[in-house]
Amino acid sequence: MQIPRMSLVTLGVADLDKATEFYAAVLGTAPNRTYEGVTFIELPGSWISLYPRANLAKEISPELPLTGHGFSGITLAHNARSKEEVVAIIGQASSAGARVVKEPAETFWGGFSGYFTDLDGYYWEVAWGPMFDFAENGELRFKDTA
Amino acid sequence: MQIPRMSLVTLGVADLDKATEFYAAVLGTAPNRTYEGVTFIELPGSWISLYPRANLAKEISPELPLTGHGFSGITLAHNARSKEEVVAIIGQASSAGARVVKEPAETFWGGFSGYFTDLDGYYWEVAWGPMFDFAENGELRFKDTA
Repeated sequence: MQIPRMSLVTLGVADLDKATEFYAAVLGTAPNRTYEGVTFIELPGSWISLYPRANLAKEISPELPLTGHGFSGITLAHNARSKEEVVAIIGQASSAGARVVKEPAETFWGGFSGYFTDLDGYYWEVAWGPMFDFAENGELRFKDTA
Repeated sequence: MQIPRMSLVTLGVADLDKATEFYAAVLGTAPNRTYEGVTFIELPGSWISLYPRANLAKEISPELPLTGHGFSGITLAHNARSKEEVVAIIGQASSAGARVVKEPAETFWGGFSGYFTDLDGYYWEVAWGPMFDFAENGELRFKDTA
């Protein structure tokens, strides 16, 4: 009995409507608001859900502090098909209200990436890397270098 | 030009070897350590990568504080097929060194879920819900209630 996948990632947000609008613009996927008080973004692979931060903390434990400080230690990533796509996606996120925290640039590992934060300060890396390939369904793969 | 998926989630970890061992045990997926200093767990859907927290922070910005305090606001989730599977998975994570922060229990939204934290304190929810179904490849779906 093992965990075979990460089904979804939940982001605790300050303003559910604004966060939903932001992610609809950045991800180009119509958000699912069938269920009151939560937004599901049904991406291929793993979903993202948006949920008021205070409710998320309370759901885990009434003792959990609602706010955090400093670097959360987690980054979400989208792997792009090219360096040009990295630049275009970060530009689009910026137009939707994201803050660009690292302009797209060559990386020490041979790739090309930039970072933005969403409305609640969560980090997204948009990256292209020479070792990455994509399955037919869009999932990440390492290039077959054999 | 839009972001069609979340390709991977990176967790900044204190001890890469220990975190790799923990996730190999919990996820049952052989970690990929081809690339020095980083571990890729090639899950179906979206991957998880493990990377030393200090390096992750530095990669974003030299000014980013290395540590954070309080609730990060992000939870990762695995959707299980049954309540029994929720209990079994949380038990297995606990055996692998996870801390159970919320024992599996009925939820206000009609589901059944529990939470554990990994070695670095990142939150995982293991949940079953009556509205969730699974595609053939394991991706989450809402049940067709039409």
